[in-house]
Amino acid sequence: MDATDNSISHLFETAVSGERRSLGKLLTIIERGGEPADIVAGLAHQKAGNAHVIGITGAPGSGKSTLTGRLIEKITKGGGTPSVLAVDPSSPLTGGAILGDRIRMDDLAGEGSFIRSMATRGHSGGLALAVPAAIQLFDAARYNPVIIETVGVGQVEVDVAGTADTTVVVVTPGMGDAVQANKAGLLEVADIFVVNKSDRPGANDTRRDLDLMLDLGHLSGLEEKTGYRPPIIMANSLEGEGAEAILTAIEDHRNHLSKSGSFETRQKQRTLMEIQNRLELLIGSTSSNALQSEAGEKILTEVLERNISPSEAAKSIASSIIRDLT
Amino acid sequence: MDATDNSISHLFETAVSGERRSLGKLLTIIERGGEPADIVAGLAHQKAGNAHVIGITGAPGSGKSTLTGRLIEKITKGGGTPSVLAVDPSSPLTGGAILGDRIRMDDLAGEGSFIRSMATRGHSGGLALAVPAAIQLFDAARYNPVIIETVGVGQVEVDVAGTADTTVVVVTPGMGDAVQANKAGLLEVADIFVVNKSDRPGANDTRRDLDLMLDLGHLSGLEEKTGYRPPIIMANSLEGEGAEAILTAIEDHRNHLSKSGSFETRQKQRTLMEIQNRLELLIGSTSSNALQSEAGEKILTEVLERNISPSEAAKSIASSIIRDLT
Repeated sequence: MDATDNSISHLFETAVSGERRSLGKLLTIIERGGEPADIVAGLAHQKAGNAHVIGITGAPGSGKSTLTGRLIEKITKGGGTPSVLAVDPSSPLTGGAILGDRIRMDDLAGEGSFIRSMATRGHSGGLALAVPAAIQLFDAARYNPVIIETVGVGQVEVDVAGTADTTVVVVTPGMGDAVQANKAGLLEVADIFVVNKSDRPGANDTRRDLDLMLDLGHLSGLEEKTGYRPPIIMANSLEGEGAEAILTAIEDHRNHLSKSGSFETRQKQRTLMEIQNRLELLIGSTSSNALQSEAGEKILTEVLERNISPSEAAKSIASSIIRDLT
Repeated sequence: MDATDNSISHLFETAVSGERRSLGKLLTIIERGGEPADIVAGLAHQKAGNAHVIGITGAPGSGKSTLTGRLIEKITKGGGTPSVLAVDPSSPLTGGAILGDRIRMDDLAGEGSFIRSMATRGHSGGLALAVPAAIQLFDAARYNPVIIETVGVGQVEVDVAGTADTTVVVVTPGMGDAVQANKAGLLEVADIFVVNKSDRPGANDTRRDLDLMLDLGHLSGLEEKTGYRPPIIMANSLEGEGAEAILTAIEDHRNHLSKSGSFETRQKQRTLMEIQNRLELLIGSTSSNALQSEAGEKILTEVLERNISPSEAAKSIASSIIRDLT
């Protein structure tokens, strides 16, 4: 294990000093999880804390990947060093399609950028640990901003997007898209709205819907408290329209965070969520072991025979875990 | 609390003897969670075990809600008593759209059916408890089949769909849809594939892609073992085409499950997952309390000052929980 520790430390040192392949290897370690991933996360955490974390989220097909591509293009042209973590199985940003019919945007982005996808398969718990670790690794390697692209559907994805410093929610014109975004909990986490594919019919209606929801929602209370109202930006990422305005809005939000001291609040929230996820996973594995034990099998049989309920079974196993720990 | 117990028991008795409003109230109790929900789940569990549980899942926009509508229409016309739990914020099955522009399919379905939506907002853990409880409640009230419609994106949704007796995965023609379904882990849980909107160009390509994946994937090993290969059915739910073929495929799969003894295996898996989810939530609330304690606050500060890593913090809190329990 010491050998692994050393080689991880070495990879980390070289990654931080600009070695892209080392960074890629560390991201793979993070993705695989387990003890090595924790070591990488620990090293990254020590050096992180400087990058502006931007979440970009929206339903599948909202064009958020193309939009992200436009943003990194502009950022790199301006001398920035953005990194992107695409937590979206359908993202064309990173290719990787089985049938090989996708565009790879890696090549489009400038030298100073780094793009990586992360599979959403497997345990959602794994994703909840891997994403913050990857963000902090990019941050430690001095990429700035760190952009996380998620498909805003599952709770994990909304959580991830919601803990960014600046969260951009992408919707498209068409009946119900704004409504769906609201139902998925995306409106509550949005700092900036983008109505993408704004050349389509209904774009102005979507804008009005969003405006209305901002007026109506409990968001208005928030707005009064913080003095910030999420702007709504019309964009057409295929044509490249709107990217400049989005970057300006991100900059404005960043200034708002700095002035209001909310940067720290958001980082605190992010850290708290990371600790909580790790804690739950840690205790979760204990409970999973308990379930697979002989006593666990016996209780399962009792439930299947409808002698006890799943809830009673869970309570019984929980107390046996506590007994075992004492 | 005894008063609550009594009124829940009363609601349950009337629901089981056919009172729809009682059933609706119990579903609301389940949705709200907590101790009352556990009582309902316990009562339902005692009487459940007869219904055929069918999962219908697919990406947003795949037309699975319309398809589900077609299926319940056919089932009720044939004298069946299907129930539907739509775990999909965008499902038009149950309406509930903020802007009121959706069709309510409740009215379309026959008298013998029951349709209900469940919000995916809030804790995903809550959903993981509420869905099995609702399934068992429908089952106890002698609805059969019990159909769960989920949007197959998040892990929870895939898990829910994957533990049904029969899982129907809906894809649409178009480059990459089959690929996305594969990436989301949907292909592995599919017992039946439906290529919906089959009048669109590329429908046959999608069918071929699915066939290829069935040939290639680790699924082939499974097929050899079970002697079952998921059929691929072309459908057009808007026109009502394919619904009959899907129902026949569901019946075929049901016969396969009966013959191979897999019915019990699936129910066992479902029960195991329910106990595990309950157990994790139970222990999770303990850990959440620990995080919010004074000691937890102190550890958070240490992490924010980068003295310790989130992983170390989680381990330290976990051991303090154990200490507290001893």
